[in-house]
Amino acid sequence: MKPLGPIPKGFEAIGGELAVGGKPVSALVEEAGSTPLFVYSRERLSQRVAELRAAMPERLGINYAVKANPYGPVLEHMATLVDGFDIASGGELEIVRKAGIDPAKVSFAGPGKRDEELQAAIAAGVTLNCESPGELDRTLDLAKRMGTTPRIAFRVNPSFEIKGSGMKMGGGAKPFGSDVDLVPEMIARALVNGAEWRGLHIFAGSQALSAEALVETQAKTLELAGKIAHAVGNPLPKLNMGGGFGIPYFPGDEPLDIAAIGSELGEKLAHLPAELGEAEFCIELGRYLVGEAGVYLTRIVDRKESHGTTYLVTDGGLHHQLAASGNFGTVVRRNYPVAIASKFTAEPEEEANVIGCLCTPLDRLADAAHLPRADVGDIVAVFCAGAYGATASPAQFLGQGPAAELLV
Amino acid sequence: MKPLGPIPKGFEAIGGELAVGGKPVSALVEEAGSTPLFVYSRERLSQRVAELRAAMPERLGINYAVKANPYGPVLEHMATLVDGFDIASGGELEIVRKAGIDPAKVSFAGPGKRDEELQAAIAAGVTLNCESPGELDRTLDLAKRMGTTPRIAFRVNPSFEIKGSGMKMGGGAKPFGSDVDLVPEMIARALVNGAEWRGLHIFAGSQALSAEALVETQAKTLELAGKIAHAVGNPLPKLNMGGGFGIPYFPGDEPLDIAAIGSELGEKLAHLPAELGEAEFCIELGRYLVGEAGVYLTRIVDRKESHGTTYLVTDGGLHHQLAASGNFGTVVRRNYPVAIASKFTAEPEEEANVIGCLCTPLDRLADAAHLPRADVGDIVAVFCAGAYGATASPAQFLGQGPAAELLV
Repeated sequence: MKPLGPIPKGFEAIGGELAVGGKPVSALVEEAGSTPLFVYSRERLSQRVAELRAAMPERLGINYAVKANPYGPVLEHMATLVDGFDIASGGELEIVRKAGIDPAKVSFAGPGKRDEELQAAIAAGVTLNCESPGELDRTLDLAKRMGTTPRIAFRVNPSFEIKGSGMKMGGGAKPFGSDVDLVPEMIARALVNGAEWRGLHIFAGSQALSAEALVETQAKTLELAGKIAHAVGNPLPKLNMGGGFGIPYFPGDEPLDIAAIGSELGEKLAHLPAELGEAEFCIELGRYLVGEAGVYLTRIVDRKESHGTTYLVTDGGLHHQLAASGNFGTVVRRNYPVAIASKFTAEPEEEANVIGCLCTPLDRLADAAHLPRADVGDIVAVFCAGAYGATASPAQFLGQGPAAELLV
Repeated sequence: MKPLGPIPKGFEAIGGELAVGGKPVSALVEEAGSTPLFVYSRERLSQRVAELRAAMPERLGINYAVKANPYGPVLEHMATLVDGFDIASGGELEIVRKAGIDPAKVSFAGPGKRDEELQAAIAAGVTLNCESPGELDRTLDLAKRMGTTPRIAFRVNPSFEIKGSGMKMGGGAKPFGSDVDLVPEMIARALVNGAEWRGLHIFAGSQALSAEALVETQAKTLELAGKIAHAVGNPLPKLNMGGGFGIPYFPGDEPLDIAAIGSELGEKLAHLPAELGEAEFCIELGRYLVGEAGVYLTRIVDRKESHGTTYLVTDGGLHHQLAASGNFGTVVRRNYPVAIASKFTAEPEEEANVIGCLCTPLDRLADAAHLPRADVGDIVAVFCAGAYGATASPAQFLGQGPAAELLV
């Protein structure tokens, strides 16, 4: 028997079934017309941002990293909750435009921006998080030809990283941002060329569950920003402090202590050095804001035994849930939180493997899980499916196509 | 410095550039209109099948596993070369229909077939590779209601697996097929219910590079098929012996010795027991037929240094090349064969990392590779991109969208 990850707080049962947004899963599946299906909860999204606002200093802006979940209705709902948006491609610029989001609230980071993407962002008035001296040259050239003032922030490759974070994005040689010693000259060059300097972007990692590690990283981030602003000799207009706030996916994971982070950050922002005194501050979060608000629902199409092992074969799989299958950025596969959604309040009574419908042994949703007895027709829920699910999975694999999505 | 995988045979240079199908990469990119781009070579596909035919016994049919590359023009070309097709979903049934392929030449395997998929396959006359007693019940029920004779082969979960294969699909408890001792009763039940018995499907693994291991597996496969046919008391109509033929991706990998496999198999097929004497035989191959015929082309959009390390940032990435990035079914990342396609004949002179445009450290195409000096505008080729590329990658990740595809 292998443990399952912890089911996020805030999900209830109606008539013995898992319910999202006040509707049992059978009703949600009927509404969507088919399985598999992603369901996102409006209420969970709102509550997450409200809790975060309550914990964080008032001065701190909260940005949403669109890549975590670009589904239109989710994005439109997030637009009523957050202060800004971070995009990672020209495709995401189109997506935020379609959602009616003001491009002035948008910043664009990404190490491989094409000329067309830079041009579209400059024209829209999006802030470019400049990743290298070469990208700065291209940006200034394009803006000059367009006769437009580009808005440029500088992404810095910090010499530190979030301790114990799931994904390291700083420390030593990295493809993201520019090394610290290059940045003051780049800022000066942008200013001389008439660009609008929109500050700094310092992103040191993601998916951290230790408040202590994040507090330490934020302190170093402020110190580094102060040093760069001092070297430039101009007050810093804005600091995007990155994200890194993780959510519990796996057995033993504990939710992040945001109160501890907020109180330490409040202290820091109340005692800033002169170079940072006038700056705007924000954090950018994707997974933390939307991850726990989403559930992936898939129907059992076969129940089979092989050499004494039970397999529940579903109509979903890694083509929608690559990370949950253990095939994206993980070395050792562990179980996400998974439940028999149509028997949510039933007691576990057997050990079973939940697998997807793809013809590959990689397609696993839960290994050796302790579950209520489930049969063909029952619905399985994979939790923590709100971020990096639908778009971070190979939807066309084996001719399957994308899952339905619903915001309720 | 880390080694690169071996570049497949058969690619030439024109004017110093890599050429596919007689055209240099610059011309191919112009033809497609943009990068990134998959290019598949008609000639390499034809030659691969011709070589295989020459090595294998005449009696052996060669099937193409559509999941490896379902791109329409590739599929249409394969239809002129092979004897049958294996599909893995209702979506792939649509794809083979669109390519004008006769459904009578098609078999459908997959552990999670939905009722709608079974129904469509029965109606079309596709052979269902039945995966479990439960699926057999559903198939017989549906066929009865439709008033149609279903064509059913039985997928067996063999008690052996291909030694050293990249992906194990047999041996012990498995979600694929039915355990051996269940199969004779299932066949009898299908016959009693008026189904057409189309034989057995025994698939023991994939991506094996050892001829010895494949010879051993094929021997065991024939033995197992004979035993089951004997237990049923009917001669076997057909045996799909599975695939498992691998291609070299990584440094040190050697091409499979198909001559050795073909000669051993020829011996076996010449001395069959009575139960197998009248059977048709086929192997089903995906990756082996198309993998080496494809190249992924992506353009360098930035060249940057960080703490002494050189990064070549491309406009492609793991959203088209998940396996090459090391994030799909691999524990330790190794380099695929990668080259600077626009300087294909130039001598290597520096160590560089080739990365994708995504804002994640997972997006790597080549680590610490020894390459000719490359700059913004140069084109990078990732080889072995003909199978499990475009459709086995999260194309919508970070708002990127799919790559162009060309068959030349």
